[in-house]
Amino acid sequence: MNFKINCDELLNKLNIIQKALPSKTSMPVLMGIKIDVYKDYMNLTTCNGDITIQSKISGEALEVNETGRCLVQGKFLIDIIRKINSKKVEMFVYENKLLIIKSERSEFKLNVMTYEDYPDIKFVNEKNKSLEPIEIESYPFRTSVKEIVFATALNEKRPILTGVLFKYENNKLTYTATDGYRLSKKETDFNGASDFKMVIPAKSLKELLNILEDFEGNIKCYIDNNKVLFEIGSTYFETRLLEGNYPDTSRIIPSDFGLFIKFNRDELMQAIDRVSLLSPQDKERNYSIVKLSVTNNRTIEISSSNQEIGDATEEIIPIDNIEGPVLKIGFNSKYLTDAIRSLPSSDVTIKFTGEIKPFVVCSNEYPDLLHVILPVKLN
Amino acid sequence: MNFKINCDELLNKLNIIQKALPSKTSMPVLMGIKIDVYKDYMNLTTCNGDITIQSKISGEALEVNETGRCLVQGKFLIDIIRKINSKKVEMFVYENKLLIIKSERSEFKLNVMTYEDYPDIKFVNEKNKSLEPIEIESYPFRTSVKEIVFATALNEKRPILTGVLFKYENNKLTYTATDGYRLSKKETDFNGASDFKMVIPAKSLKELLNILEDFEGNIKCYIDNNKVLFEIGSTYFETRLLEGNYPDTSRIIPSDFGLFIKFNRDELMQAIDRVSLLSPQDKERNYSIVKLSVTNNRTIEISSSNQEIGDATEEIIPIDNIEGPVLKIGFNSKYLTDAIRSLPSSDVTIKFTGEIKPFVVCSNEYPDLLHVILPVKLN
Repeated sequence: MNFKINCDELLNKLNIIQKALPSKTSMPVLMGIKIDVYKDYMNLTTCNGDITIQSKISGEALEVNETGRCLVQGKFLIDIIRKINSKKVEMFVYENKLLIIKSERSEFKLNVMTYEDYPDIKFVNEKNKSLEPIEIESYPFRTSVKEIVFATALNEKRPILTGVLFKYENNKLTYTATDGYRLSKKETDFNGASDFKMVIPAKSLKELLNILEDFEGNIKCYIDNNKVLFEIGSTYFETRLLEGNYPDTSRIIPSDFGLFIKFNRDELMQAIDRVSLLSPQDKERNYSIVKLSVTNNRTIEISSSNQEIGDATEEIIPIDNIEGPVLKIGFNSKYLTDAIRSLPSSDVTIKFTGEIKPFVVCSNEYPDLLHVILPVKLN
Repeated sequence: MNFKINCDELLNKLNIIQKALPSKTSMPVLMGIKIDVYKDYMNLTTCNGDITIQSKISGEALEVNETGRCLVQGKFLIDIIRKINSKKVEMFVYENKLLIIKSERSEFKLNVMTYEDYPDIKFVNEKNKSLEPIEIESYPFRTSVKEIVFATALNEKRPILTGVLFKYENNKLTYTATDGYRLSKKETDFNGASDFKMVIPAKSLKELLNILEDFEGNIKCYIDNNKVLFEIGSTYFETRLLEGNYPDTSRIIPSDFGLFIKFNRDELMQAIDRVSLLSPQDKERNYSIVKLSVTNNRTIEISSSNQEIGDATEEIIPIDNIEGPVLKIGFNSKYLTDAIRSLPSSDVTIKFTGEIKPFVVCSNEYPDLLHVILPVKLN
């Protein structure tokens, strides 16, 4: 193996595949980056058990003198290329023992790892040649995921809830996330050949979003039984899917609202933020409970009370006059701020059905996006 | 106690006194901020055992309706004032139990702590009225401290080395820091009434530097037996001094150099940085050992070797021709990068006396600043 490569291009690709490089692992071989050099292109591959990423370099950036392959400690290779102050580097394997990385004034010799120890990588479109890809536009896809992914469960009590449900039917693609205490849902128009349904782990989506941040255009998506592959330009991103039945969430979303309150978004956000400073923390779910009350004089009071520290109260005047009953409701302030954050409009509306009933946070500017929050009982 | 205060001014002062608010402590009372309100000014005071800070607010920012005092959880008071979106707040104590903080739309009630539990604060200039202050200019003082403070010891094996020695004699003020493996020293012209000598803990200096960052002009410095007080505008900053004899460092500084090498500073810095990527870490002192060699063809090679990972070599061509013997020397790369960082000139010079002798890092542009590094034995 012997090639010359443009450092910027190599670093770009290393930054992508780094997303599947585990920081610690019970399988040390996964700390390696697999380098495969062919006649006129090369592949860089990483895999952390959940995600596999492969990125291809070809064209002018690469000048292959000898094909070959090697496996090398990922962290060190990335650190070196990041710090090398050179336009091009030369890389070659010496006596099957060392990967030599040479620039004008620097020479690094990295011990190679045993290539044959690396797990066999085969992407779903190679295993199953008959898989038809679905074409997805990068920008609306990553925006939609960002708008709802925070509502997935962090703990593994119900593993299926640690992922996002993607469901396509009736020409609608819906994105659903819930941790059992809140639910976020986005609906988009979509044109697919056939219906599909899959649950992608939120952790994998986080890495996928990072890669998509720099990518405009279409992604090809190959869905298999327990894996999905995204083809993003010259990069393959494959993740396992979560198995099991995703709960039917349609029953949770209330529809018969007795009270609508329209807020100036920033004002509500800041009031919640301040009141949360003193609100009692629920250790287990790490949240702050605050109380929202509609007073008799039709203003809104947001408050929290903490025996050890003190009390906080904020008064907000809603945008429109409130029609509906007087009401007191308690909830996790983080759930409300997460929901508001994903609705960057000038105002947000909260719709209530009753004091201990789930309520909806939404905005006219985002008709396809809604957040449902389950209240907590007030003492 | 009852007053109205400008929020920005209050926050400014809270940000200053926060530096002596402990994040955790065995004396919970120190988590409080002491507020003393007088007829036309108020004091905010914090103390973490090592440092005491008191900041005064007076003038237009403050409107006192009733004098008084209270002690309140510092963290919460600061969080609230930081997030209050209001020009002014009103603060008053209610029934000796609650501190009420009121702005246009918000009301916070913080439980007060027992004021009488707070330690008695008396600054050295109040205890000893005959103490004469020394006037120090803020800018050169903080610059000099920054140039050498990193060389103090982190561990407490020799407590005196965790501080910086300030010594004034013969119209020279010298700043010295050493951890036993390297030494940094700055000499400045100074005009004082009488000689002095004190060792200030590096931790205290770090907080002092933060406060001085926003302060131009003169500081008054009152030195007592075991404490020093800095009067910085309307702020008092007092810290304990380290007791014990600071070692005589004059013997460590070599003077008879056989070899001078002048480097392009950035080139040297980057080479060291890259080579350190692979250098072996000394667990105990958390350092990377690199080797510098003068080769027969009069270029410089910087290298490191790590059995587990691999080797790195950099070649540097010095600015001037090297006169002197061939040489190989090993050292902690962090010590060299720390030294280079404090010399932001276009070139730096390293002066050697021999292979296992301390060497000096300096720059013509900073004639009053020098760094000495002790080498490590090479295998």
